[in-house]
Amino acid sequence: MTTTRPNQPACETDQPRAIVLVSGGLDSATTLAIARDEGFACRALVFDYGQRHRVELEAASKVAQALGAEAITMVRLDPDAFQGSALTTAIAVPKDRDTGSMSSHQAGEIPVTYVPARNLVFLSYATALAESVGASDIYIGVNAVDYSGYPDCRPEFIEAFGRAAQLATKAGDEGGALRVHAPLMEWTKAQIIQRGNELGVDYAITHSCYDPDAQGRACGHCDSCLLRSAGFEQAGIADPTTYIRV
Amino acid sequence: MTTTRPNQPACETDQPRAIVLVSGGLDSATTLAIARDEGFACRALVFDYGQRHRVELEAASKVAQALGAEAITMVRLDPDAFQGSALTTAIAVPKDRDTGSMSSHQAGEIPVTYVPARNLVFLSYATALAESVGASDIYIGVNAVDYSGYPDCRPEFIEAFGRAAQLATKAGDEGGALRVHAPLMEWTKAQIIQRGNELGVDYAITHSCYDPDAQGRACGHCDSCLLRSAGFEQAGIADPTTYIRV
Repeated sequence: MTTTRPNQPACETDQPRAIVLVSGGLDSATTLAIARDEGFACRALVFDYGQRHRVELEAASKVAQALGAEAITMVRLDPDAFQGSALTTAIAVPKDRDTGSMSSHQAGEIPVTYVPARNLVFLSYATALAESVGASDIYIGVNAVDYSGYPDCRPEFIEAFGRAAQLATKAGDEGGALRVHAPLMEWTKAQIIQRGNELGVDYAITHSCYDPDAQGRACGHCDSCLLRSAGFEQAGIADPTTYIRV
Repeated sequence: MTTTRPNQPACETDQPRAIVLVSGGLDSATTLAIARDEGFACRALVFDYGQRHRVELEAASKVAQALGAEAITMVRLDPDAFQGSALTTAIAVPKDRDTGSMSSHQAGEIPVTYVPARNLVFLSYATALAESVGASDIYIGVNAVDYSGYPDCRPEFIEAFGRAAQLATKAGDEGGALRVHAPLMEWTKAQIIQRGNELGVDYAITHSCYDPDAQGRACGHCDSCLLRSAGFEQAGIADPTTYIRV
């Protein structure tokens, strides 16, 4: 775990503090912009869990810095605990799936890019860090509309996690709140991009592709690229992504 | 994360598999014995989160090996995420508290040995590992009777976590169960020791003390020593612990 402080204020402020999960993708970048807009001093929490698309980590740092995070905490989690996924193991990332059919979660549709219990571990770590640094709020950029069908992106999961976190902690037990926010939950990808655009997010520094080339260029064919690309198109905003597009 | 395999069977078995959280203390040792007795091939999951009482980690390995765990997975978590506790920071461990009054959880009683969101993070990691290795069950030795007042040892927390884990995972989503067991929850310390004794647990190799000396001897005065010592007395079983007892 390393913490850097790219935008630390010159003096202590009485702003409330939030932990924001930042992956380097467009959803979490927008979420960070929203948390700041809602008045929080933000600590970006970035996980290196052995994801094959390493360029994501670089993007996460850039995003956190550009969007005014006071601190960036990078945590390395052992990849051996997150096996069996195309994002961590030598399994082919699916290409050119029908993203139109991904807009509501149905049992049995979970793709091979699912990483075991990822958001559960990330949110738990965020909860521990929140208590450690005196933050009252946690933001996560999950979305249940234009998404790939991961169970840990559902509102039911976020709600159940919030309850578990409240019961697990001193902060929750002593009547203080420990709130988990998922502001993008019900938005389309186009709405997310529009809101981020209003808040000044530079999407050119974000990275969504599951299967980039060695130069970090997006494949243009994985679920994540397809959802991103369609989102920009629907939002009527130019997509700044560099795609390989063969 | 390192995994050793002290008791691996010569061939694959069709036994169901469980992840058992093992700390090196008497509760988790008893829990491991119970999980084995209930028919599971067990993987012991041990966390090094920067606890000051390092002797616990050595005890955890011995316990797992002695109680027939097929594999021991040791995970290092960054201590910076678990601050503000007497177990991870230079805060004095409370001594000679009235453990008689610790037998039911009341708000405001959480002691300084509380570690932020510890069981939430441990169980989340166990969930990821369970999915990664194809285990259906998780065992944790929490107890809400003779305990120190930690919020993350309550039945309400375990229940809420179980629901979050079920919703977060592919295993849960696809209708498969991911069960979280806390078999000691309603037992007194004496009952735990009696059950462990029946199952052949060698409590001499377990370690409970929060504040041992350099030789690993138990202080005899912290909450954990007091609860352990009283438990053996009430169970009518000789306490094999080496106490400093000044």
